Amino acid sequence: MSTLNAKAMVMEEFNAPLQLREVSMEMPRDVIVVEILAAGICGSDIHMWRANDPRVFLPLVLGHEAVGRIISLPCEKHDLYGVKLVEGDLVIWNRGMTCGRCQACVLWKQPALCSQRWTYGINPPAEFGLLQGGYATHILLRPETDFLKLSEADDLTAMVIASCSGATAAHALDLISIRQDETVLVQGSGPLGLFAVALAKSRGARVHIIGSGEERLKLAKELGAEEVWDRRATTVEERREAILKGNAGVDAVVEAAGSPAAVEEGLELLRPGGSYLVAGFGDPAGTFELDPYRLARRQIRLQGVWTSDARHLAHAVAVVKKQPEVIKQIGTEYPLEAANEALLAMENRQIIKAVLKPQ
Amino acid sequence: MSTLNAKAMVMEEFNAPLQLREVSMEMPRDVIVVEILAAGICGSDIHMWRANDPRVFLPLVLGHEAVGRIISLPCEKHDLYGVKLVEGDLVIWNRGMTCGRCQACVLWKQPALCSQRWTYGINPPAEFGLLQGGYATHILLRPETDFLKLSEADDLTAMVIASCSGATAAHALDLISIRQDETVLVQGSGPLGLFAVALAKSRGARVHIIGSGEERLKLAKELGAEEVWDRRATTVEERREAILKGNAGVDAVVEAAGSPAAVEEGLELLRPGGSYLVAGFGDPAGTFELDPYRLARRQIRLQGVWTSDARHLAHAVAVVKKQPEVIKQIGTEYPLEAANEALLAMENRQIIKAVLKPQ
Amino acid sequence: MSTLNAKAMVMEEFNAPLQLREVSMEMPRDVIVVEILAAGICGSDIHMWRANDPRVFLPLVLGHEAVGRIISLPCEKHDLYGVKLVEGDLVIWNRGMTCGRCQACVLWKQPALCSQRWTYGINPPAEFGLLQGGYATHILLRPETDFLKLSEADDLTAMVIASCSGATAAHALDLISIRQDETVLVQGSGPLGLFAVALAKSRGARVHIIGSGEERLKLAKELGAEEVWDRRATTVEERREAILKGNAGVDAVVEAAGSPAAVEEGLELLRPGGSYLVAGFGDPAGTFELDPYRLARRQIRLQGVWTSDARHLAHAVAVVKKQPEVIKQIGTEYPLEAANEALLAMENRQIIKAVLKPQ
Amino acid sequence: MSTLNAKAMVMEEFNAPLQLREVSMEMPRDVIVVEILAAGICGSDIHMWRANDPRVFLPLVLGHEAVGRIISLPCEKHDLYGVKLVEGDLVIWNRGMTCGRCQACVLWKQPALCSQRWTYGINPPAEFGLLQGGYATHILLRPETDFLKLSEADDLTAMVIASCSGATAAHALDLISIRQDETVLVQGSGPLGLFAVALAKSRGARVHIIGSGEERLKLAKELGAEEVWDRRATTVEERREAILKGNAGVDAVVEAAGSPAAVEEGLELLRPGGSYLVAGFGDPAGTFELDPYRLARRQIRLQGVWTSDARHLAHAVAVVKKQPEVIKQIGTEYPLEAANEALLAMENRQIIKAVLKPQ
Repeated sequence: MSTLNAKAMVMEEFNAPLQLREVSMEMPRDVIVVEILAAGICGSDIHMWRANDPRVFLPLVLGHEAVGRIISLPCEKHDLYGVKLVEGDLVIWNRGMTCGRCQACVLWKQPALCSQRWTYGINPPAEFGLLQGGYATHILLRPETDFLKLSEADDLTAMVIASCSGATAAHALDLISIRQDETVLVQGSGPLGLFAVALAKSRGARVHIIGSGEERLKLAKELGAEEVWDRRATTVEERREAILKGNAGVDAVVEAAGSPAAVEEGLELLRPGGSYLVAGFGDPAGTFELDPYRLARRQIRLQGVWTSDARHLAHAVAVVKKQPEVIKQIGTEYPLEAANEALLAMENRQIIKAVLKPQ
Repeated sequence: MSTLNAKAMVMEEFNAPLQLREVSMEMPRDVIVVEILAAGICGSDIHMWRANDPRVFLPLVLGHEAVGRIISLPCEKHDLYGVKLVEGDLVIWNRGMTCGRCQACVLWKQPALCSQRWTYGINPPAEFGLLQGGYATHILLRPETDFLKLSEADDLTAMVIASCSGATAAHALDLISIRQDETVLVQGSGPLGLFAVALAKSRGARVHIIGSGEERLKLAKELGAEEVWDRRATTVEERREAILKGNAGVDAVVEAAGSPAAVEEGLELLRPGGSYLVAGFGDPAGTFELDPYRLARRQIRLQGVWTSDARHLAHAVAVVKKQPEVIKQIGTEYPLEAANEALLAMENRQIIKAVLKPQ
Repeated sequence: MSTLNAKAMVMEEFNAPLQLREVSMEMPRDVIVVEILAAGICGSDIHMWRANDPRVFLPLVLGHEAVGRIISLPCEKHDLYGVKLVEGDLVIWNRGMTCGRCQACVLWKQPALCSQRWTYGINPPAEFGLLQGGYATHILLRPETDFLKLSEADDLTAMVIASCSGATAAHALDLISIRQDETVLVQGSGPLGLFAVALAKSRGARVHIIGSGEERLKLAKELGAEEVWDRRATTVEERREAILKGNAGVDAVVEAAGSPAAVEEGLELLRPGGSYLVAGFGDPAGTFELDPYRLARRQIRLQGVWTSDARHLAHAVAVVKKQPEVIKQIGTEYPLEAANEALLAMENRQIIKAVLKPQ
Repeated sequence: MSTLNAKAMVMEEFNAPLQLREVSMEMPRDVIVVEILAAGICGSDIHMWRANDPRVFLPLVLGHEAVGRIISLPCEKHDLYGVKLVEGDLVIWNRGMTCGRCQACVLWKQPALCSQRWTYGINPPAEFGLLQGGYATHILLRPETDFLKLSEADDLTAMVIASCSGATAAHALDLISIRQDETVLVQGSGPLGLFAVALAKSRGARVHIIGSGEERLKLAKELGAEEVWDRRATTVEERREAILKGNAGVDAVVEAAGSPAAVEEGLELLRPGGSYLVAGFGDPAGTFELDPYRLARRQIRLQGVWTSDARHLAHAVAVVKKQPEVIKQIGTEYPLEAANEALLAMENRQIIKAVLKPQ
């Protein structure tokens, strides 16, 4: 019987460096073992590290975004399109596990709202052990995890970004229909916002973005944004005047900024009957004054968006396959052992998204 | 050539009694002349009378809710179901006139958002003269007005209430789908709220209502509400505890209260993924603090609703036909000349809805 | 350790009487044991008995419609609304088991199309033993079965009819939206058609039915049908003339007749833009000539409907709770041992629906 | 007062050459006069010319697809996005005129089904005179016509193709939602089919096409089709085997072939739950045998599509703006006087689409 020798960067204390730990065990026979080839660091990982997410218990291997290669597959398993998986396959998987039997899963068909939902790298059941997150050489995945087989030609850095940011952006845009002559405004130029640009463009919309960071805004353009507003170089009034000039407002806004001020600004940029998708709040970040009359008078839809389900991951992966060369530029690669450095670089906004490459 | 002798209660000054005026004219040949048999007083009429609606110019015949009998039909005209109209027909009509050629009308297919929209009894073009409102013996309707032919058996007091409250409630409920095992909570027990109860029930939902006024809540029960909460006899906390007991929350809320505090309360009563329909704000009435994270975390849809279009009038009329005996009890009848008394009775909440009977 | 002594009417040969067999076993610990209180005989059971369903292998306990009382619950289990189940609870359950992990289940969110779907009483895996159907005193249900807890006050004969006919009718009507002024025509007056009447009515439609059988048509009326056409006492032309008189056609048709001639007739009764729901074909029953131009010219939607999922069962149960007194009349009760007699009565159309009462 | 001197190719007899006629008149003051810069010849024009369209009365100026420049604008007029039009503007317009007041227009919000609908170049009211079609130097447009202002940079040959083929393809695709991982199959490589490829691609689908003609299939590829099947070089069986290999079938089919055999083939290429859009039948073209059981078993939606409304024109124009260089290659330009030659070239399939350039 073979042995699994794995390494992981373990969060043993909040606000302290992750520790490199080795785990050696008999190759488990009840889970699917994947060798991680790329693992993303999500903005919410910083919040967890800073002890701001009540879902998290220590010790934990962070990392809910990853792709890798199956090295042990003790059960028969097909991917979401029905492709039979075999050891050696490159795969991506849905980071969230849902019960499949509750009101949210069965009656509402919104598994992202499953009350039993847990996420690899965030809040896996303690009895599953340490190897349940992406900042590691290996991850042990439950047999009921939803997989998508990747191609050997896929760019893994680009693909890993689809795991969470891409899937959440896909969820947001899935909640509205987009007509071919419509305009979608994205607020925020982090991974979520950039993916929202790519997805809205891929669905046929004209796309505007309000964000900051020269590199980010340049990427937004390459992903298809037609009008790009630097949040720091322009005022709310300047943007409003320019965006509303000669038209009734944008048809939809995807909020990927996580700030109540962004919501306030964005609501005023919508046309009557438009939709505002609140997708960028992973944690509480304050409130704003809402006038229900004004919402009614303009018949605005203000729609919350929470995480995503496997379907949205499939959409995000499809979009990555259309322009991997641009999307991979969102990521900056680090060795696994440099996870602490990568977390700090994310926190300080020196990079858009860190991608750990354990091998 | 025949003569039209009409009487109208005219608003010549804000905050002052309407004046009974007589209008005598040659029977006009470019409009459809309707003898008014019942005309509703809407809560928003009070606001207009109190000079709180910037759309209104004097002099004005108030009244955007009415039914009557065609006495002069100079053009060929069919109702919305294709029935050819003739003089003598009982009719109801859509109170709003839209351009049919703008973005809202043609591209969005949301004529209630037409920027050229005007409403009989609120803001008709001045050149159309005085007889453009319901507080009168006659009204002159543009040939392009959308009509529904009524039956001689229809109760006119019940039907007139469909004109505005009914159609707006229908619009709100049209924006969501209702499954047969779902619960809709209505906030507010005025005509809009009572119609929302009737419509939600008619579409198959279990219905709860939070309102006040013994008679109103009794009517809500007769219209199908299963759980009835007296807003004055219970606290927010008591209602929350009771409504959320043993379940995830209601599937949808129809706000028909016009108060930001109601929105705050109602949002907390929704299940994850639920919809909140803001339908009760005809005028600004303050703000409340919204936490976008909480909206996102529970994936709530907060949806503004503005007036209605002809389609919603048709829905409301269909619902009236199902239970006219109950719906007519919403109305209290007054002669036309008692319009001032009726306005005050509405303002003082002595009655739910005044219905003027000019004949 | 307790013993389970069960009796079942077993189909050991096609086209031969079911045999009463006794099964005695240790109370199983890996499944939920339900004492059956009522089990429906579905029209498709006749087809299976007559060897016309290739899904079926012998021996088999028929019966995919049932309600009963939990007598052994070895695992923690909640119903679809989150209610914790305990031994002694009255329950109904979704007859179909789906994998929850394939394209149909996860990506399309249409579990009724799951390629791994199997059904109690039709094609349960052989290794689960005999007690997998409703024609028995007990049934052994997989822990992942979807349950709804019933109330002690619920009429079980009415409720059992919701299992299959009700859920399928709910599925059909779930595929369209129904406005409050719309008309739905149901073709067929068997359990499926009668449930379609109840559901369409419950969702606010005006309902017509074409069927046969005096008692069935009388029940249709009690369930809310406004116009009732006896298929045998009227011709296609008479019905067409009457139904299309003075209007553009019905808004939707629910086909519950299983005959290509019905589809041909019904398509011509739709208004332009209407929807035709093909819900009554459990088996191949011939073809008809379709003119694609005519479908296009009138912009008809011809929509196939296959079985149902747990959500539709929940809808059907909700509708039963609204009018159990009428719905129970669809069923004719038989003792379990009279299953052969009941099958023949169904086959000969002497009754609408047989309900076996094992206790 | 100025004079309008126009020339038109007039259909005075069926199956005979169109005749060049001159029309001289005072510049009309009740219509918008447009100088035609490009006018498409639609496949249905051939049918009309061959006396196969019962809507047509002689004499008639054919041509329902056109773009041009406003030379006389006697009324205030805005385009669909609210842009105020002035003389000299380049414009395209919706070819169909609808009543705006009937059930289809108001209640169903499907103006393409308006029973009063008439089309420029097909069946304009006789009293509007000859200049109501595109095969002319000028066209007189009713003030209520829906316009879109074009830019001087727009390619007019590309744009004219959007008028009818583009708008109809947009209508078809508007009836379904497309997820980012879905595949749309287009049947037919005429202008309708090629536009369907462009639109499906623009909305994010993977696109396959079955068609014929080397140039057409090359254009389909340039427009984004990934798999291209030459209908003449492959058999139905070969295509089925290849298209269904390793997957459940395509998610949607757009039929743009006008042949019942195509419908039969295409239905078998759909995945369970898929949608088949019948968009290519402008005239009756025979029937096929449909098995309702098979439709139900696979839960297929077979959806008729009839013409389009102004909204779909807006979508098609938006798509043309994305790739005018490819789309213009669909058209072959002819002088107005060569309309007879162009009709024959279309009929003989020597070209994909003729575009008359009158100036």
